[in-house]
Amino acid sequence: MLKADERLDYLLAEDLRIIQSPSVFSFSLDAVLLANFSYVPFQRGKIVDLCSGNGIIPLLLSVRTKAEITGVEIQERLVDMAERSIHYNQLNHKIKMVLGDVKEIKGLLDHSKYDVVTCNPPYFTTTPGNKKNMNEHYAIARHELLCTLEDVVKAASFVLKQGGKASFVHRPGRLMDLLSLMRKYRLEPKRLRFVYPKEGKEAHTILVEGIKDGKPDLKVLSPLYVYNEKNEYTKEVHEILYGKEQ
Amino acid sequence: MLKADERLDYLLAEDLRIIQSPSVFSFSLDAVLLANFSYVPFQRGKIVDLCSGNGIIPLLLSVRTKAEITGVEIQERLVDMAERSIHYNQLNHKIKMVLGDVKEIKGLLDHSKYDVVTCNPPYFTTTPGNKKNMNEHYAIARHELLCTLEDVVKAASFVLKQGGKASFVHRPGRLMDLLSLMRKYRLEPKRLRFVYPKEGKEAHTILVEGIKDGKPDLKVLSPLYVYNEKNEYTKEVHEILYGKEQ
Repeated sequence: MLKADERLDYLLAEDLRIIQSPSVFSFSLDAVLLANFSYVPFQRGKIVDLCSGNGIIPLLLSVRTKAEITGVEIQERLVDMAERSIHYNQLNHKIKMVLGDVKEIKGLLDHSKYDVVTCNPPYFTTTPGNKKNMNEHYAIARHELLCTLEDVVKAASFVLKQGGKASFVHRPGRLMDLLSLMRKYRLEPKRLRFVYPKEGKEAHTILVEGIKDGKPDLKVLSPLYVYNEKNEYTKEVHEILYGKEQ
Repeated sequence: MLKADERLDYLLAEDLRIIQSPSVFSFSLDAVLLANFSYVPFQRGKIVDLCSGNGIIPLLLSVRTKAEITGVEIQERLVDMAERSIHYNQLNHKIKMVLGDVKEIKGLLDHSKYDVVTCNPPYFTTTPGNKKNMNEHYAIARHELLCTLEDVVKAASFVLKQGGKASFVHRPGRLMDLLSLMRKYRLEPKRLRFVYPKEGKEAHTILVEGIKDGKPDLKVLSPLYVYNEKNEYTKEVHEILYGKEQ
């Protein structure tokens, strides 16, 4: 089932496995934090994950919901990895991958039909300085080469129902752009959480949830620290990654 | 020197006194946090504090700078209190109060001449529900009766030089509005700090600094907690209020 240098890694808290590859794509902590941050309906509903990569977010969300989850990813190689992970975990009835471009979302998914959208988009506006030093799969996943932040926010708004929720993860340097674009595309920001590497440091990650056509009223949640003073994961992050102690 | 029910309160960290009155105006912790958060040039420069109330922010800033500070306040009663406090502290050479309306800033202060603006504006968009229960002085200071958030951001931008800094304090529910207005009036948000009542709670206050015509790149500073688990001020807030232990 595994190809080339792929590995079958554990998602311990969820008791799942996921196919990764050091030369193609490995999920980041940001994806895990976004999945944890996102609202998910338990009984029913339809969820979309944009820029889905190797399907990490659909896999993580699947244990918290009976809803149907669709991952959209532009790289064929990653869709293939995601589909084999879904199959391995026997989640074919719950998770479906769609190969396609978020800029062409109209041709891929229905308008105003989804309850929740998640997206861990490419972070960097600049093209990689030295392209030779960056493999194409990583370049596309990390840099706004094939889609911009505006493209993903617009696509999220397109698929969401009124009252549906969209969650994004990004860097603080883009908070202004992200919040402005969310408002522009009617995804009113409602919950904001900052992730700090440790106490006393600046935030390095932001988590934002907006509601389509929601009323303005933003809440700023308690900070999330990744490491404690001993450079170990904090209790909160440890539980997100490895599950709660029984 | 004191009128009616006024008190001469201590600003302990700064070794200053300030005139307050329970029936007219008392400064809040927010003003103290804003003064602490704001950049201040040490040697030279010109500083404006909009919605200055009883002059709390000019008084606090005066100990950190040789710059000239101007407080703008619309309520004559508060300008009078501020001026007596300035006189009591022998700061007439450094701090000047201007009675006037920020909506008419053009007639009050020069355009593009100031290095720093601070503003602790009225927070509430709604008019007080039961006006009988709220005294007029407090109503004007707390509610957007005489000026809106847009009025103060616009006025701040008007007086600031290119590269000058504007700092605001507000509630998280207005973060979106404040950031959007700052960008609209060319005060690019650069530093953002959230104030939490204590660990594990949502933020109740935001501090934002923008730079006129600055380049987009927002930093999110470490969180500021007001109280510890024993409901005492945290070390950081204690030092801001009472000064560092020698």
